[in-house]
Amino acid sequence: MQDLIAQIKAFNRERDWEQYHSPKNLAMALSVEVAELLEVFLWLTDEESRHLPPARKQATEEEIGDVTILLLALAEELGVDVLEAARKKLQRNREKYPLEKSRGRAEKYNELK
Amino acid sequence: MQDLIAQIKAFNRERDWEQYHSPKNLAMALSVEVAELLEVFLWLTDEESRHLPPARKQATEEEIGDVTILLLALAEELGVDVLEAARKKLQRNREKYPLEKSRGRAEKYNELK
Amino acid sequence: MQDLIAQIKAFNRERDWEQYHSPKNLAMALSVEVAELLEVFLWLTDEESRHLPPARKQATEEEIGDVTILLLALAEELGVDVLEAARKKLQRNREKYPLEKSRGRAEKYNELK
Amino acid sequence: MQDLIAQIKAFNRERDWEQYHSPKNLAMALSVEVAELLEVFLWLTDEESRHLPPARKQATEEEIGDVTILLLALAEELGVDVLEAARKKLQRNREKYPLEKSRGRAEKYNELK
Repeated sequence: MQDLIAQIKAFNRERDWEQYHSPKNLAMALSVEVAELLEVFLWLTDEESRHLPPARKQATEEEIGDVTILLLALAEELGVDVLEAARKKLQRNREKYPLEKSRGRAEKYNELK
Repeated sequence: MQDLIAQIKAFNRERDWEQYHSPKNLAMALSVEVAELLEVFLWLTDEESRHLPPARKQATEEEIGDVTILLLALAEELGVDVLEAARKKLQRNREKYPLEKSRGRAEKYNELK
Repeated sequence: MQDLIAQIKAFNRERDWEQYHSPKNLAMALSVEVAELLEVFLWLTDEESRHLPPARKQATEEEIGDVTILLLALAEELGVDVLEAARKKLQRNREKYPLEKSRGRAEKYNELK
Repeated sequence: MQDLIAQIKAFNRERDWEQYHSPKNLAMALSVEVAELLEVFLWLTDEESRHLPPARKQATEEEIGDVTILLLALAEELGVDVLEAARKKLQRNREKYPLEKSRGRAEKYNELK
């Protein structure tokens, strides 16, 4: 991952694109890419989304590539380690969604009784 | 990262949440989380987004944690390796945005002359 | 609708918020609100989304209110008439999706054979 | 607007697309279209977004057309009147953002002191 982050930074620096890459703009770009990923699943049933035909499968991989690049670029700009941030959040989620209350239920934590 | 992915899977399996986690639903959840990250930057100038006060900085870290968890869960469900997908896409971007044409310009590749 | 647009403009002018309301920022805010609307449907099946319990139904109405306000504010800022824009687009869609090719099929127009 | 809503319904009924148009799917489609609108502003400064060149201006009108069509289709499916929902929300916003506290300030209501 460190190597990939270094490559992303070099890619942007060589094109003199850092001037555009404020966290605000990178977050906007990340939203746009995530919507392109979402579009691959548009009008499919849940079940169909679990069994994508090859062209759609390939499209998800490309869009996940874009999303990952932008997420790493944004996190780097903010000085955030994505894996560490995910680990902390997972720990918080363990507290917000205790096993006995949340098993088999899709409610948000503040709707759990 | 492998360890984090294993933890995410265990978290969801223990709560019997895999039934909800079709790729379509995970892509929707990823969109929702990315919008929460985007919201942190709402109404800020580009410059302000580069110098966030501590509470907003902390909020970005939490939202990046959520985005990372959902991106890894979705990629795992689809059998996609996020780092490999990003590397491939970066290589494709090098071809779409050659240095001499794209330096210092923000246009999309199909608008570059 | 003209009256509503006038009320939205007065609301923003009285709070001296026009300074923040560049089209870019309004489009970001619109994205954030649409994601809150999307969140109401998260983890539901298609069928469940057609029969929402009252609290969720109420939530969709509030989020649709926010989305409408922001859409009208953005369109006003850009000098676009939303109804006219929708009518033109609907006409274009009639050409892109001819009846005989698109009936009962969810593919995007460029995937229709 | 009533006429436009009737046209949208006829367009979808003629193509037998109502089967795909659960509120969940329409909300997803709305997100995708809003992201395409957001993309028009990507990498622009706030100031540039206030003075779009003609091609981008045209693009915003088309995307606003798509967003309006989907918003009306979703609201119709849910039995929500968009103008009424916006009016109610604007009234609520007047209470959440009293003039003396919110003038010239971009904070969210729960951050206003």
